[in-house]
Amino acid sequence: MQTPWENRFAQRTQRMKSSAIRELLKLTEMPDVISFAGGLPAPDVFPVDEFKAACEKVLRDYGAQALQYGSTEGYTPLREMICRHTARQGLNITPDNILITSGSQQALDLIGKVFINSGDRILTEAPTYLGALQAWNVYGAEYVTVPLDDDGMITDQLEGALRSGPKFIYALPNFHNPAGVTMSLERRHHLIALADQYGVPIIEDDPYGQLRFEGEDLPSLTVVDNTFRGDAENNYRGNVIYLSTFSKTLAPGLRLAWVIAPVEVIRKLVQAKQGADLHTSTFVQMVAYEVAHGGFLDRHIQTIQKVYSERRDNMLDALAEFFPAGVTWTHPKGGLFLWSTLPEGFKSRDAFVRAVEKKVAFVPGGSFFPLGGGENTMRLNFSFPTPENTRLGIERLGWVLREMISEQNKP
Amino acid sequence: MQTPWENRFAQRTQRMKSSAIRELLKLTEMPDVISFAGGLPAPDVFPVDEFKAACEKVLRDYGAQALQYGSTEGYTPLREMICRHTARQGLNITPDNILITSGSQQALDLIGKVFINSGDRILTEAPTYLGALQAWNVYGAEYVTVPLDDDGMITDQLEGALRSGPKFIYALPNFHNPAGVTMSLERRHHLIALADQYGVPIIEDDPYGQLRFEGEDLPSLTVVDNTFRGDAENNYRGNVIYLSTFSKTLAPGLRLAWVIAPVEVIRKLVQAKQGADLHTSTFVQMVAYEVAHGGFLDRHIQTIQKVYSERRDNMLDALAEFFPAGVTWTHPKGGLFLWSTLPEGFKSRDAFVRAVEKKVAFVPGGSFFPLGGGENTMRLNFSFPTPENTRLGIERLGWVLREMISEQNKP
Repeated sequence: MQTPWENRFAQRTQRMKSSAIRELLKLTEMPDVISFAGGLPAPDVFPVDEFKAACEKVLRDYGAQALQYGSTEGYTPLREMICRHTARQGLNITPDNILITSGSQQALDLIGKVFINSGDRILTEAPTYLGALQAWNVYGAEYVTVPLDDDGMITDQLEGALRSGPKFIYALPNFHNPAGVTMSLERRHHLIALADQYGVPIIEDDPYGQLRFEGEDLPSLTVVDNTFRGDAENNYRGNVIYLSTFSKTLAPGLRLAWVIAPVEVIRKLVQAKQGADLHTSTFVQMVAYEVAHGGFLDRHIQTIQKVYSERRDNMLDALAEFFPAGVTWTHPKGGLFLWSTLPEGFKSRDAFVRAVEKKVAFVPGGSFFPLGGGENTMRLNFSFPTPENTRLGIERLGWVLREMISEQNKP
Repeated sequence: MQTPWENRFAQRTQRMKSSAIRELLKLTEMPDVISFAGGLPAPDVFPVDEFKAACEKVLRDYGAQALQYGSTEGYTPLREMICRHTARQGLNITPDNILITSGSQQALDLIGKVFINSGDRILTEAPTYLGALQAWNVYGAEYVTVPLDDDGMITDQLEGALRSGPKFIYALPNFHNPAGVTMSLERRHHLIALADQYGVPIIEDDPYGQLRFEGEDLPSLTVVDNTFRGDAENNYRGNVIYLSTFSKTLAPGLRLAWVIAPVEVIRKLVQAKQGADLHTSTFVQMVAYEVAHGGFLDRHIQTIQKVYSERRDNMLDALAEFFPAGVTWTHPKGGLFLWSTLPEGFKSRDAFVRAVEKKVAFVPGGSFFPLGGGENTMRLNFSFPTPENTRLGIERLGWVLREMISEQNKP
């Protein structure tokens, strides 16, 4: 029986599908499946004791404030702390340049709400972050794409896409989700110069930037842009909106992230957020501030870097040992993900079906391509599974791939 | 200097204005203003000690789960608890009928995203909740309205509005925001019958329903609807989407609320929420569950009822003592708000300007009318100010109104 609601869904959501990533996450809940499918931080590194102390302090000293409604912009000491961290990365901003959001996913949604008219083209990397597509599809976004290689977005192929008049460029320069690659400094400069030349602004999504465990930090696109325009003022007025999050450094269960943007963009995003959820939990913001400030976050990030670096190395070793010839993978210098490519003609969705039978899961890479393609690719998460499980899971996945390749080679 | 972003705002947000309510809330931050403008719970009744104990327990026993990503639908024990509470109110549902949201404001936004196409008419009461208009304006909603009296929506005037083909009806049956009135049982039945006859579904917004301090609880529209269609099944499949929240019973700083709806509506709202913020903070959900379950919430609501009842009486006494003849007000039987009407021809916005000079604030009622009108009305919040401040603030407001009336009466 139909309820009266069913013929009333809006056009924008009539074809809305449950996110592949969210559905796959459900597999991680089956205890006997080794899952490389999620994007979950290692729970081992959650600073539980620090959270306990912070909750105690916040409720003891500021209980009435922490449990009350707060401002849409966000808790001021938290925004001031983000300003200090951003200054260390080479960009001077004020709290007026910052909006606290309920996770970066909300920042993507608010950006869609504020900027995307139905039919607008968005320029993304291919592959790109699935959550951005999911946020923007409901606003009627269409896509043009530029491919990636080991140095990130291939900016030499950018001009054709820019000539199609995109509303903005969406880029993940550091430890790309899903591809695990990092945009070289030279390409960052090239991207900023071309974006300026064509008058097309940029969304820089940087959830993993602090999680580098190899090589030197590269300046964010925001910093490169600010240097490019020689703007010495103490608030950012440039071409880039920057997104980052506490999900990968403190804990994703907080749903706590931030946007850095020119003041008039923040103002518009604030208005959109008023209608979307009034403000992000005051209590969560105050607790996160208590945990993070005064140097703890810096020390804690070093712990995470160490753990994730070991887990990446462990996965790389297992891949070298168990994956068959002809299968390749990226060598991420940070972040949570690694990207593997099967020989031409093999479909990672077929591998996925067989893998789940063998109690191991990953995300087939095709989902990350807005215009199709990448059928022979897969995303592997190395932050969440234990080292022992990673070794076992990659061994199982190796069997599946060997089996597929040997079937293919049979007469 | 314009940044590249400014000429790129989407049509839907080009005329988006900062919410009047949010701007007015800023007045409450000026320490010497007595504000009846906000909709803030009394911080005196926040169960701070229970929150402390709950944080301690959740982090000790479930730290890794509480700080990790969770399911979009929400924390299962919390949804099961809501099922038990809903059963006591006369409606049997399952957790599949429930979505946990980041405050009721997010529920309103998701409903707009899932149901409203640009140009759709929404049928609201006049006056109605401003946050709903703010959430739905960005999706291009237009409005038809039905007036209220002391028994709530005047359902005798509903058919004309229903004939205009609204997408849905939006109603606040209990302790209306802003009007403070409650829909009579007879009108609840009339509304449900007419909605069924015209095939128009209903959003029932019920943030204050548990905060009744006078008279008997009335069945929710959801319960009346379920009885009307004689549906005995254990999951709700009817005509009403029901919204409620922990903001007024536990604490608004959590940003924690829920939607009850037919399963296929929940499924669509879940998909919209995946793109909007992935899920509501796991930590907040688990802490709220620890505080609320096992009978504490029931006992705590009795405390709130007692405090708010006294504050309402205190405001009613002050109004009787200090407001001039010709000004009337509602007698709310619960909730947070009272609604006052000035004599015809007086503008409450003029009174507001003078009131702020005298360090007292309220919300001019005109903002709550989607199609204009109500220029001589005002909303007064009685939950937040202390009894002493309420008395002093109403005295000041009385001066302002007397002054305006006596100027009017001069030759």
